[in-house]
Amino acid sequence: MHAADDPIPGFYAVLPAGGPGSRLWPLSRTDRPKFLLDPLGNGRSLLQRTWDRLRLLTSTDRMIIVTGEQYGAAVAEQVPDIEGHNLLLEPAPRDTAAAIGFAAAVIAERDPAGILGFFPADHLVRDESEFLRAVREGVRSANAGYLTTIGIDPAGPSTAFGYIELGERLSVPGTSQVLRARRFVEKPDAETAARYLAEGTWRWNAGMFVVRADILLGELERARPELHSTVTRLAKAWRTAGWAAEARTLWTGIERVSIDYAVLEPAAEQGRVVVIPAALGWDDIGDWAALVDILSPAGALTPAVIGDVARVLAYESTGLVVAHGDRQIAVHGLTDVVIVDTPDVLLVTTRDRAQQLKRLVDELRRRGRLDLI
Amino acid sequence: MHAADDPIPGFYAVLPAGGPGSRLWPLSRTDRPKFLLDPLGNGRSLLQRTWDRLRLLTSTDRMIIVTGEQYGAAVAEQVPDIEGHNLLLEPAPRDTAAAIGFAAAVIAERDPAGILGFFPADHLVRDESEFLRAVREGVRSANAGYLTTIGIDPAGPSTAFGYIELGERLSVPGTSQVLRARRFVEKPDAETAARYLAEGTWRWNAGMFVVRADILLGELERARPELHSTVTRLAKAWRTAGWAAEARTLWTGIERVSIDYAVLEPAAEQGRVVVIPAALGWDDIGDWAALVDILSPAGALTPAVIGDVARVLAYESTGLVVAHGDRQIAVHGLTDVVIVDTPDVLLVTTRDRAQQLKRLVDELRRRGRLDLI
Repeated sequence: MHAADDPIPGFYAVLPAGGPGSRLWPLSRTDRPKFLLDPLGNGRSLLQRTWDRLRLLTSTDRMIIVTGEQYGAAVAEQVPDIEGHNLLLEPAPRDTAAAIGFAAAVIAERDPAGILGFFPADHLVRDESEFLRAVREGVRSANAGYLTTIGIDPAGPSTAFGYIELGERLSVPGTSQVLRARRFVEKPDAETAARYLAEGTWRWNAGMFVVRADILLGELERARPELHSTVTRLAKAWRTAGWAAEARTLWTGIERVSIDYAVLEPAAEQGRVVVIPAALGWDDIGDWAALVDILSPAGALTPAVIGDVARVLAYESTGLVVAHGDRQIAVHGLTDVVIVDTPDVLLVTTRDRAQQLKRLVDELRRRGRLDLI
Repeated sequence: MHAADDPIPGFYAVLPAGGPGSRLWPLSRTDRPKFLLDPLGNGRSLLQRTWDRLRLLTSTDRMIIVTGEQYGAAVAEQVPDIEGHNLLLEPAPRDTAAAIGFAAAVIAERDPAGILGFFPADHLVRDESEFLRAVREGVRSANAGYLTTIGIDPAGPSTAFGYIELGERLSVPGTSQVLRARRFVEKPDAETAARYLAEGTWRWNAGMFVVRADILLGELERARPELHSTVTRLAKAWRTAGWAAEARTLWTGIERVSIDYAVLEPAAEQGRVVVIPAALGWDDIGDWAALVDILSPAGALTPAVIGDVARVLAYESTGLVVAHGDRQIAVHGLTDVVIVDTPDVLLVTTRDRAQQLKRLVDELRRRGRLDLI
């Protein structure tokens, strides 16, 4: 057992920092994805806050960020403590199995029995002590050989997240609760989500899991032998003179598949995945609607403001105003409005339409306005 | 009788260009009132269009603009043809009786029997030929000695305008229809406005009237002898070395009263005012709601756009978007929205709340943001 702030021996924190830049458009852009933003306006980006949380559990030499090549400079600027060899750069986006497999293979080169924890770099975690508890227990469960996911206590019948069904309880020393993961389910419909919530035996899948490097690579090899062999070769080339050539030839052809689909789901079906339930106050901030719900709870009488509150004057309005331009914003008489004011783009929509940005972004792309998307 | 485009002998067109800058805020400002704007986006300001219309009826030496001292330079820039002595500058706003009385007194100095037509410089007139007809007939009626108002055929039961009740028909050579003005009524309630519309004997008062200079000054002398004496003294000082001193002492103390209340209403009660009905396609563009109704008729499937349409992308939305900043604007899922994007202020409101800008503007004034109002 360790004191709350002690680093965990042998624990590597891996932060996949990817995802398209369009979900919080126009605040997020192709070249400024969500993880680089500070959508809650508290002075640290989502990536930085994820880094800060995990920094409490390990030393910087065991903290890894996996991101797209084009974001390398921005990530290094936001996280100056990262060590160069720990900033893994994907030559092109190839989904999570490639990113996570590559990271696992790189770490396995150094430490085959290292314990890896994967934590998406663009999520919100409000209860930090619960997070630290869950990860510490996850490491113990991983040390016991389990592929261990963190299962988020659902805050409601969301249809936006995947679910994990809890199975029988296992006995793992030093943990409060570890249960078998019976199965993973993709985003359900509303009726199913309501049933899951009522049943009480389902947790949200937030893409956070802890596992020994060799076990994860073994699962990957079993499920996707070719992908495994590719990321292993790439890991050997990482930080060598041959990287550019290997990356160009090998990475491009790698299979695009999610780690959930490729590894976690089949492994769970065979009983090799466990869950540590946790009430993290978690959200993936998947769109503006999520941010409205986080910042402006039901019953709020004024819109939430991100940015300079002195620049926003709102009467008889609710929703969210992002004041990232340098102008005065005046709002009157709009319910559940989402106003995002940036120096080159203004978005005005509603909480309920905020998921439908794709059409706007696609039209701008069609018009050749790549500078705005 | 004259051909359509002949100037009318002895006719002076007077354009009162005043009014607060707040009704189309933030497009209009204290230093950029509505008459200087081109809210319809057709390349000429409301003042310029009013000038253009009247220029068809008289020569530039008989075209007068009455405006606030602070707008003199902007007016001269927009209307370079105006002659210096015809750009009458009010040292301070003192309502319409002072402005119109002063203009009448200045012209009477030159031509006591001149026919004056007054036409607010910030209104919309869509049917220009009907306007020209009404004014030509108004001049004939004025020549016959009548204080002649143009009565606008009401387009609906508006509660935003004053009304004139039509009385018995008079015989005036060269006119199609001149009727006694029975009385003037201020903005009525909705029920009364509906009744007026049903009765068919009421016209909107748009503040347009035609009258011989000496007759108007006689009415003013009868109704407001002190005001009459003041504007007469001021007219004698206009363009003399003594103007600044006279303006400072005399103008400041002048009574604040509208020409309707001071002159037209009492004169109508005594049977000395007549009406020429006209269907002008008129609107005073009193607020953003009026502009929505003008530019985006009921049933429109997309918002009207003022400014660069290429900068506005709108889906499933109606209302009005003013693109006067240099940014891309994206709108999705808002009904009857009013978005006014300017370089330093963004307004987002709805058609129905667009009359209530005062609260926003007052709050900015309270905060000392005079640069924004």
